[in-house]
Amino acid sequence: MAGNSREPGRTVTGRAFSVLSAFDAESPRLSLTEISQRAEIPLATAHRLVGELESWGALQREHDGRYAIGLRLWEIGLLAPVHTGLRSTALPHMQQLHERTGANVQLAVREGMEAVYVEKLSGRRSIPVVSRSGGRLPLHTTGVGKVLLAHAPRAVVQEYCARGLARHTPYTIAEPGRLVRELARVRQRGFARTAEEMTVGSCSVAVPVWEGEDVVAALGLVVQSARAEVTKLARILAPAAEAIGRQLDEENR
Amino acid sequence: MAGNSREPGRTVTGRAFSVLSAFDAESPRLSLTEISQRAEIPLATAHRLVGELESWGALQREHDGRYAIGLRLWEIGLLAPVHTGLRSTALPHMQQLHERTGANVQLAVREGMEAVYVEKLSGRRSIPVVSRSGGRLPLHTTGVGKVLLAHAPRAVVQEYCARGLARHTPYTIAEPGRLVRELARVRQRGFARTAEEMTVGSCSVAVPVWEGEDVVAALGLVVQSARAEVTKLARILAPAAEAIGRQLDEENR
Repeated sequence: MAGNSREPGRTVTGRAFSVLSAFDAESPRLSLTEISQRAEIPLATAHRLVGELESWGALQREHDGRYAIGLRLWEIGLLAPVHTGLRSTALPHMQQLHERTGANVQLAVREGMEAVYVEKLSGRRSIPVVSRSGGRLPLHTTGVGKVLLAHAPRAVVQEYCARGLARHTPYTIAEPGRLVRELARVRQRGFARTAEEMTVGSCSVAVPVWEGEDVVAALGLVVQSARAEVTKLARILAPAAEAIGRQLDEENR
Repeated sequence: MAGNSREPGRTVTGRAFSVLSAFDAESPRLSLTEISQRAEIPLATAHRLVGELESWGALQREHDGRYAIGLRLWEIGLLAPVHTGLRSTALPHMQQLHERTGANVQLAVREGMEAVYVEKLSGRRSIPVVSRSGGRLPLHTTGVGKVLLAHAPRAVVQEYCARGLARHTPYTIAEPGRLVRELARVRQRGFARTAEEMTVGSCSVAVPVWEGEDVVAALGLVVQSARAEVTKLARILAPAAEAIGRQLDEENR
């Protein structure tokens, strides 16, 4: 067993986490065989590890015999600063934004080359969106993503563009040069917008959440294209993002 | 290393989870020394495990050198059925309840002898409450707790009473006989109430969420004692809980 391994899959602990990593949003329930295949470990090893993980509450067995992530792991995960700090501070402001606009309200952070959705509020008046809390979406096709990319180090933007900008709709910005110019405009105006770039029929507006000198998150609204009054929505978002940043600043002092 | 051990602390995987279990709501950030002490493992072992957990994203290092639960573990935890199923289904209904009443809205499940809060919504108009999502509270002093206990197997109620009913305020029901009679009333009336039994100045009302024949969760409101119009609040809660149960039923079919 190697300590501090950069390839954690090679250690016993690493194998346990390969088992947990076998689960994702598309496949939140897996059979033992599926776990063994996805984690690339022998069935006997998978069986032993799953037993250990279940006894600890990291996995739980469902009625149909398949496994899912357990309540205990969910509890521990909620102790992450992104939840206890950012999400808790932002939630009341997000509720107010939702009450006021009826739009989908989203809070996201950048993790590498993706936007991770920390929280999402939607109601009966809101249109369906593809994001979910804990889910990931591209940076160049979403309002919150553009904000996060606009305030990322230059090297991140270069690598992001170099990987290729996947086209989700005919309106997706898929040319690196156009995206770089768009990001400059996002910094200038103080908000980002998308017009049917992720999903036809949906538009979004997003603003940065500043904690001191750093953009720590992006706060956005997703509305039907027809209802998009971009500047008005940005004016509603800005004070909420400021209040969140101010509170985060005070809490971390 | 024992497979399927009932004492997971004895295995390598178990030790890794002892490290994660060292974190709790009161201490979400720990130094290496604190982790070693709380997990009851030698400092050198703690150092190696923390390194592995960090490389996997289960832990993250903060600016001050202490460790916290990492984003990757938070993401995996959100795949738990309690989040993807129950919480996602209930959230829009909880938002509506919050908009309508301005009260704290809570969703909880029973885990052993405690109520685990799956979600909590509060706003500027709400009074401060002690619950937080992922947090635990007693069953006999909270509205949601009474609902969950009222619908628990008789053996659970007996064990709960046998452990002793801690008194949080002068109004806490601390006599087992009184609690058992109260639970019968909860089943009869279809809702539970508390009057300053957890926190002086706060009252709560809660109803069960039925999925088929089972009570899978409790949905509650917490308000200022002075504002408590119990029957009215119960009438607002009931249709929301029914709608959640119906949706859960459909989704799991």
